[in-house]
Amino acid sequence: MLKRLFAPTIEVSAHCDLPCGVYDPAQARIEAESIKAILQKVAEKPDDQDFKTRAAIIKEQRSQLVKEHLWVLWTDYFKPPHFEKYPQLHTLVNEATKLAGAGGTKASWDVATADELLGKIDEIATIFAETKKA
Amino acid sequence: MLKRLFAPTIEVSAHCDLPCGVYDPAQARIEAESIKAILQKVAEKPDDQDFKTRAAIIKEQRSQLVKEHLWVLWTDYFKPPHFEKYPQLHTLVNEATKLAGAGGTKASWDVATADELLGKIDEIATIFAETKKA
Amino acid sequence: MLKRLFAPTIEVSAHCDLPCGVYDPAQARIEAESIKAILQKVAEKPDDQDFKTRAAIIKEQRSQLVKEHLWVLWTDYFKPPHFEKYPQLHTLVNEATKLAGAGGTKASWDVATADELLGKIDEIATIFAETKKA
Amino acid sequence: MLKRLFAPTIEVSAHCDLPCGVYDPAQARIEAESIKAILQKVAEKPDDQDFKTRAAIIKEQRSQLVKEHLWVLWTDYFKPPHFEKYPQLHTLVNEATKLAGAGGTKASWDVATADELLGKIDEIATIFAETKKA
Amino acid sequence: MLKRLFAPTIEVSAHCDLPCGVYDPAQARIEAESIKAILQKVAEKPDDQDFKTRAAIIKEQRSQLVKEHLWVLWTDYFKPPHFEKYPQLHTLVNEATKLAGAGGTKASWDVATADELLGKIDEIATIFAETKKA
Amino acid sequence: MLKRLFAPTIEVSAHCDLPCGVYDPAQARIEAESIKAILQKVAEKPDDQDFKTRAAIIKEQRSQLVKEHLWVLWTDYFKPPHFEKYPQLHTLVNEATKLAGAGGTKASWDVATADELLGKIDEIATIFAETKKA
Repeated sequence: MLKRLFAPTIEVSAHCDLPCGVYDPAQARIEAESIKAILQKVAEKPDDQDFKTRAAIIKEQRSQLVKEHLWVLWTDYFKPPHFEKYPQLHTLVNEATKLAGAGGTKASWDVATADELLGKIDEIATIFAETKKA
Repeated sequence: MLKRLFAPTIEVSAHCDLPCGVYDPAQARIEAESIKAILQKVAEKPDDQDFKTRAAIIKEQRSQLVKEHLWVLWTDYFKPPHFEKYPQLHTLVNEATKLAGAGGTKASWDVATADELLGKIDEIATIFAETKKA
Repeated sequence: MLKRLFAPTIEVSAHCDLPCGVYDPAQARIEAESIKAILQKVAEKPDDQDFKTRAAIIKEQRSQLVKEHLWVLWTDYFKPPHFEKYPQLHTLVNEATKLAGAGGTKASWDVATADELLGKIDEIATIFAETKKA
Repeated sequence: MLKRLFAPTIEVSAHCDLPCGVYDPAQARIEAESIKAILQKVAEKPDDQDFKTRAAIIKEQRSQLVKEHLWVLWTDYFKPPHFEKYPQLHTLVNEATKLAGAGGTKASWDVATADELLGKIDEIATIFAETKKA
Repeated sequence: MLKRLFAPTIEVSAHCDLPCGVYDPAQARIEAESIKAILQKVAEKPDDQDFKTRAAIIKEQRSQLVKEHLWVLWTDYFKPPHFEKYPQLHTLVNEATKLAGAGGTKASWDVATADELLGKIDEIATIFAETKKA
Repeated sequence: MLKRLFAPTIEVSAHCDLPCGVYDPAQARIEAESIKAILQKVAEKPDDQDFKTRAAIIKEQRSQLVKEHLWVLWTDYFKPPHFEKYPQLHTLVNEATKLAGAGGTKASWDVATADELLGKIDEIATIFAETKKA
């Protein structure tokens, strides 16, 4: 199973042409999964204020990481031809990063917010994968 | 193809029981892939000192990230029963983190060093995947 | 003179509505000014390799700060109505952040690259100021 | 209006002689403005504990940034002749950084603490501007 | 007294052979002492929720620093002959870093947890000192 | 020997009254020792440009850490009565932090610069120890 997990990662990263050249929407997704897990755990013990405070601290950091990983894709990976071919791409990334901010998972304690963020990341990842195949 | 890429990630992360609970050796692997790409690019233009200086700066950071991602697995994910079942695990992670340090990709300009590091990360990922299935 | 310097800063920041709510393109501009000064100093002593290495390290960090300050404006300050009113805004910020990356001040040793970056930041600042007045 | 905002910034930064050479008390001021805005918002919704927890996290970071920006001015920008001409300067910066710490905006929820901090930063900025004109 | 304080520090660090070559378990210990002091202060004012929130933020950071300082010892300082001579060393460092994590001082508000962590750090420091003498 | 190493550390830190309350000039000293070791190693292999580039990167970070540890002492530990009793303290810390900056160990490749920095840190540590005894 692990082979299947890593094989595509290697494939999608193999043909880039930048100084570092390795990009992967999985980085943002892992952090967003973490946020979802945090929200689920807090929902399971609603009366544990100490736990919620730690969750707030960690959720703030993880949400920031989501933003940073998506910003890197937007600025460093995607090129003018991508934005031409996918005219919704600017708005999509902008909305996704907003969803990992004050209007999203940073302030929200609703698991649905993390699901919404994960949905946006998957949309970005779909476009990313298409540009890799091209 | 993307579905295949993300599906296992979600699966291997779904049943953890820690505060955040999402772990994935892919994080270390992505950074190590980046180091390998950097080393390959430097090898391709051996006379560009400015490029090599930037590569040194970035390689130092990426190597540090590999170490941190592996340390997190070693301390936060793996539990005493794992270390019992896999008696080589301590040494394996210790060697992998050393390979991302001064005795490895931080100082080396040889692509083979990155390959050696990637091999160790894959060994850790294989154990990780087995403990997830268990 | 100082009064003149700070007064507008306070004014442009006074009416925001977010959790923190203080935004200022001056943050990106100060870092870009720093990059320009670094490039000028390196140009003045072209044979000092030690100085250039330190400049490369610091320029890498400052360029990253420019990117981060601009990303914050793009995601946290600008809203859908802004993007509607200024249809060039996505491209403008994307180009500005690219100019502070590998295709810009991170790799370049040409003062003109910093000037180009400063020009883009000024364009963003002009739009920012207009949205503040609105 | 924007022109007026940026012009002095450029002017006060143009004649420095250090490796980077761009200093600006505006950096500390922007963070202190942010702290003030945070304190005002918390004061407006005193019963929102979740909001206050996030505010505590962000206020801690912003206060730290104020300290760091002021420390940089104290160590990197100000020189022995400045300390001779302004004998109160050491105490002033020391008090300002303390006001951004545990005895100030890090622990306090009083908007007046942020105002006191802003007052100190303005005193430093006045001296800074005088040394720039000299 | 100060002489006595620093003299051994210098002595134990003087004969290393790595790029930087200065290691000292005191770094982890100082952070763990800080955590203990924080826990004691929170215990003294159990009704001050604002203070406890700040304590949670700082305790999270300090605990992370303990982990990082110990990881550096484990990966960068200790060598295969050390692990051979001290077969408990892997487990000891692993347990110490876990004690500075979610299963230890990050989540706990019990001073005893910090004491347990300090005990583990002292065990590591004892081995460290023996390897320095060898 | 280890007992002797840690005992004074604990003693000098045991009676503080701040939120965290643990201060120790050893933190700055360890980083300065690291800088000295780096400079010595570079002096031993003057023709290894790759090694020197890595040394420049790490020396920049370690020097910054020295500055930060000293700034924390200056702002967070020392109080007005200390500055009254030791009128040279402001200048001493200012000079020490300058010695860890562009006019000191950040730019210099001379071991003597690290020795000068260590001398200043020892002067600060002597005052620190006296205030602890008081």
